Amino acid sequence: MIKRVLIANRSEIAVQTIRALHEMNLQAVAVYSTADRDGLFVQMADQSVCIGSGLPQDSYLNMGAILDAAVLTGSDAIFPGYGFLAENSEFAELCQDYGVKFIGPSAEVINLMGNKSNAKETMKKLEVPTIPGSDGFVDSLVDAKRIAAEIGYPVMLKAAAGGGGKGIRQVNNQAELAQAYSDTKRESQLSYGDDRLYLEKDLSDAKHIEMQAISDQHGHVVYFPERDCSLQRNHQKILEESPCLELSEAERAHMGEVVVRAMRGIHYENTGTFEFLMDHEHHFYFMEMNTRLQVEHTITEEVADVELIKAMIMVANGDNLPFCQADCGVHGYALECRINAEDPAQDFQPCAGKITKLHFPVGTKGVRIDSGVEVDGLISPFYDSMIAKIIVHMPTKPAAVAKMIRVLREFEIEGVKTNREFLLAVLQDKHFQTGDFNNLYIENVFLKDWMKQDGAK
Amino acid sequence: MIKRVLIANRSEIAVQTIRALHEMNLQAVAVYSTADRDGLFVQMADQSVCIGSGLPQDSYLNMGAILDAAVLTGSDAIFPGYGFLAENSEFAELCQDYGVKFIGPSAEVINLMGNKSNAKETMKKLEVPTIPGSDGFVDSLVDAKRIAAEIGYPVMLKAAAGGGGKGIRQVNNQAELAQAYSDTKRESQLSYGDDRLYLEKDLSDAKHIEMQAISDQHGHVVYFPERDCSLQRNHQKILEESPCLELSEAERAHMGEVVVRAMRGIHYENTGTFEFLMDHEHHFYFMEMNTRLQVEHTITEEVADVELIKAMIMVANGDNLPFCQADCGVHGYALECRINAEDPAQDFQPCAGKITKLHFPVGTKGVRIDSGVEVDGLISPFYDSMIAKIIVHMPTKPAAVAKMIRVLREFEIEGVKTNREFLLAVLQDKHFQTGDFNNLYIENVFLKDWMKQDGAK
Repeated sequence: MIKRVLIANRSEIAVQTIRALHEMNLQAVAVYSTADRDGLFVQMADQSVCIGSGLPQDSYLNMGAILDAAVLTGSDAIFPGYGFLAENSEFAELCQDYGVKFIGPSAEVINLMGNKSNAKETMKKLEVPTIPGSDGFVDSLVDAKRIAAEIGYPVMLKAAAGGGGKGIRQVNNQAELAQAYSDTKRESQLSYGDDRLYLEKDLSDAKHIEMQAISDQHGHVVYFPERDCSLQRNHQKILEESPCLELSEAERAHMGEVVVRAMRGIHYENTGTFEFLMDHEHHFYFMEMNTRLQVEHTITEEVADVELIKAMIMVANGDNLPFCQADCGVHGYALECRINAEDPAQDFQPCAGKITKLHFPVGTKGVRIDSGVEVDGLISPFYDSMIAKIIVHMPTKPAAVAKMIRVLREFEIEGVKTNREFLLAVLQDKHFQTGDFNNLYIENVFLKDWMKQDGAK
Repeated sequence: MIKRVLIANRSEIAVQTIRALHEMNLQAVAVYSTADRDGLFVQMADQSVCIGSGLPQDSYLNMGAILDAAVLTGSDAIFPGYGFLAENSEFAELCQDYGVKFIGPSAEVINLMGNKSNAKETMKKLEVPTIPGSDGFVDSLVDAKRIAAEIGYPVMLKAAAGGGGKGIRQVNNQAELAQAYSDTKRESQLSYGDDRLYLEKDLSDAKHIEMQAISDQHGHVVYFPERDCSLQRNHQKILEESPCLELSEAERAHMGEVVVRAMRGIHYENTGTFEFLMDHEHHFYFMEMNTRLQVEHTITEEVADVELIKAMIMVANGDNLPFCQADCGVHGYALECRINAEDPAQDFQPCAGKITKLHFPVGTKGVRIDSGVEVDGLISPFYDSMIAKIIVHMPTKPAAVAKMIRVLREFEIEGVKTNREFLLAVLQDKHFQTGDFNNLYIENVFLKDWMKQDGAK
């Protein structure tokens, strides 16, 4: 029976976890670094233990100190949150050795899915679509032609030894293939001393669609409506929405079936997210799995009408899932914006500093603001620069977008620069509003225009 | 076409209305008293006009000043909110004379429903159940017996001239009637010099159940799930919930039918609420109608998944209702607590003062905090003492109650006393949790126990 949970994390996710625990009448133990000693989460916890200096390796990555704190405080379980040790299989294993329940999947599963090539192999065996390609090297132009015809154009020819942008070519049709084949081979030999190539379906014009699911210890598995997280800058998600409005109910159910099969196939316990690339025909291909809660789980909570941190604790405690598949359909539309302390004019460099004024526009239906900071709080240079997640949940996307724009305009902060204006510009963008964007849209199209017009302000 | 709306109100409701207008891309004009010059709503509006001193009659009740401000700012419409001029038919008529659209029903309907006896007569004609009774005076004991048998015991015998608690008697059965009749007659004669009596069904052990509805100008009428507002102190609602969990879907639909018939019968435009007394057998009886938005409309927004201020503006603009009856079923359960600046130890006297610290526990799914104040804001002695409405929306009542308790415990305010501990005690009360309470429960039962135990702290 879980009675006291240590939270091996900080700030926003620590605050929300303390709240979930208190609503469940459970005790919350915070661990914190000296840099976080005045943090809201430290004040809110029932007990708090300082575990080291502000440097992550001294504190939030310090497995020994965290587990000692767990034993010292009599904690039955550890909630890892996201980042830090959340996907560290060694930590999950150590928890087991210490007799403290790790709230998440087993060390074996974390390990399996943490290795990209093992993960891909496993998914293939479980009939989860993976990015189609040559399954090894391409032996000849004839071979390349055959494979390309099988998987469909456009395809990418890639140097097996590549990685730095050299030896990579997009091929749009069979007519282009012969020339591209010989050019890429030559370039690979010149760049890497190795002319072996492989061939893969070109998914550079795809959307990043992910689907979260949860399993309890009794064989119940539930998937949630997908999230569209295509809007990214420098591989960081900027703004997430759920559901992806282009997907039909049947397509969603099919993706859900695949995800549930995969969850069962790897004997997954607790929650995890399958990240897919989805092409224009809505074929989706496994990229990777996150074996933890994600920042953007909030929009899933809104759309599926569930509370995920509570569900995770219940699953770890051996309880049945508190909901079934039929409860977790699409309820309206939700949108999340991440307010970060960063300076768009300086290539979005994180800004540390003290928050001297903070006005969260709380109120009205459909607005949720999850944050870990307060006025006079510090944005520390040691950690990520997220100040708050603003979540809007409305019956439709246009209503949600109008509300999010109003909320962001009302939001006030002084002491650090933020990405607020950038988010406002994305929200007012026609491509965003109509869903007409892919993974590369922000970096390759939107950001270039915006920097010219507003970014330098 | 409404483009600019003047808000003839202040604080919380003014703030939410400005937000609704901004989300609709409409202009918001605030009017304010000198006491409110630093108010959040004044800062948030697109334009603000000072209309007089802090005394309500000089400002928020000053029709001339408000209408002048409307003309001066080119406002097309006036949103009255609740309190002040919201149910003043003269004001509604003056708006019409000035060519400014009053966002609410016509002056005639406000007038009709504002007169209790006219309202009751009108409802009777429309076959809305009213409190059964003698329909005039009781002529004799025989007459009293007949009427009491018709409407069922218990009944109340009341002095026609009464009002001060004298000349009123509960009669539980026919055996008690003769004695009660002569006693009440004698007491009435002694107290008021008039021994005429009337007889009414005894509904002192009833619940206060109300149902809100809305009509557009095109004949569409929609009712919303009922609210249980039985928990009152001194006729002030303390905590409201929706739906009333004792009501079945069929009973809700029946009440809705009655309400829609009444709305049509009086040619009602925009939103209004029918207040009923409901007995143990779930018979409900018309008490009065509020021809305006109510404070507790928030829980209806959550449960019915609608936004009411926006809908009111659309109706006033001549648009169709943005939802239909099928959209407005029961979605989960919602609960509102009103945080007031008042001192429970001093018989809940309002406390004016400056707020020196304020921490709203925003965040997590299902929490909404509608407020009109900020840190350093003033709670003015001129106006009501509400600081914030905390609304929790969850799939079930136990989940909502657990969350509300957590939120109230986390809520911090310094500078004024509040009713927080009192609300926390109500939330933890078994009678509240099981729905086993009536209109008088707080005053007659709960408050007495609580004052003994905690109230004096």
